Amino acid sequence: MNPPHPLDKVRIVLSHTSHPGNIGAAARAMKTMGLDKLYLVNPKFFPDKEAERRAAGAWEILNTAVVCGSLDEALKETSLAAAVTARPRDLSHEVFDARQGAREVLGNARQNQVALVFGNETAGLTTAEASRCQILVNIPANPEYSSLNLASAVQVMVYELRMALSDLASFPRPSGVAATFDDVELLYRHLERLAITRGFLNPEEPKRFEQRMRRLFARARLEKEEVNMLRGILSALED
Amino acid sequence: MNPPHPLDKVRIVLSHTSHPGNIGAAARAMKTMGLDKLYLVNPKFFPDKEAERRAAGAWEILNTAVVCGSLDEALKETSLAAAVTARPRDLSHEVFDARQGAREVLGNARQNQVALVFGNETAGLTTAEASRCQILVNIPANPEYSSLNLASAVQVMVYELRMALSDLASFPRPSGVAATFDDVELLYRHLERLAITRGFLNPEEPKRFEQRMRRLFARARLEKEEVNMLRGILSALED
Repeated sequence: MNPPHPLDKVRIVLSHTSHPGNIGAAARAMKTMGLDKLYLVNPKFFPDKEAERRAAGAWEILNTAVVCGSLDEALKETSLAAAVTARPRDLSHEVFDARQGAREVLGNARQNQVALVFGNETAGLTTAEASRCQILVNIPANPEYSSLNLASAVQVMVYELRMALSDLASFPRPSGVAATFDDVELLYRHLERLAITRGFLNPEEPKRFEQRMRRLFARARLEKEEVNMLRGILSALED
Repeated sequence: MNPPHPLDKVRIVLSHTSHPGNIGAAARAMKTMGLDKLYLVNPKFFPDKEAERRAAGAWEILNTAVVCGSLDEALKETSLAAAVTARPRDLSHEVFDARQGAREVLGNARQNQVALVFGNETAGLTTAEASRCQILVNIPANPEYSSLNLASAVQVMVYELRMALSDLASFPRPSGVAATFDDVELLYRHLERLAITRGFLNPEEPKRFEQRMRRLFARARLEKEEVNMLRGILSALED
């Protein structure tokens, strides 16, 4: 049996897509580079005739696309999610260009499920969405007009993933097992619960605390064992 | 005065485009990476509402697009034309992948007009069209489904051109002045005329001769001075 191909562990997540044609064109772009896992978070129209038309021969990607009610659902079981974004962000996330970002994502995909996350055509990703990802990826562009079409942005990123395949052998392998989105989410909720019961956090005003903690976890790229240890400490503190 | 930016010397040539939406999307892709010279060889529909819609903010590229009756017209004054093609070809042209091809094109654009040539959505470039270019460029893709959308292929190539900007300084500079498409065309016609008058070439059956000679000239990447010298020899032989 062959080991799973790293491109098979990369999911493309499109959040709040307005134009179904872009979903079809993104599916086609994915197929040209050998990817097939498409997740759609609250698409405006799907399934849709225009999506099918623009998918050309990539219908099976549309047929197996996973439609989700939230980004969290689309990121389930991933260990690394990269937010593809044109705008600079007030987040302390590590920022990569498309080429370096593809290498980072593919390097992780040898062992873990990973995601590339694309926002709405007009508004891009919200800060809340981007802060649920661990890294930011930026496609270098004309500073006076950096607005790539959604499917074109997908095409550039999946092209870079395919190009990165050839230098995969030279990537350093992470030493530990990466924590998944779900592991980190449980850790965060555990911490939040404790912060509230101890009066450190006002549950009516959790915003700043949440964002700060998510930033920290994103930067840290926690391993499974580290999450277990931290949750053990929290449990001990709860007693 | 600033020296002309190398991206300003790169023209995007779309030959026999069927869907005007792809022309608009290609214009948008160009603008996102800082290119603005679009040449259209016998587009099926242009100008067109769908092209304008898909161009988003890149209307001025459509407004200044040069519509040509032949590929030769679109390649006027270029010294290097790269045929972007998915299929392997029975041509002896040098073949580059998208990344290396972009470097080759941009390296030349420091001194010369250059072109990236894209064929029809369904049929691609004809062999006659590709043989009028000097190099072939291939976008690495899934061997089982390598059919990129036309505008997506343009997006990948202009993205690679922009990425190549940063390592432009390290490219070797060509020593001589490159011959233009027009120079080489005159040389070819001169040679053909002589071959016919001397009975070497049957003007009813010029095909193989033409293709052979074009291949040779494409591979050689002639300099202006070499063309002058060769035409001098031909003139001497004519007397």
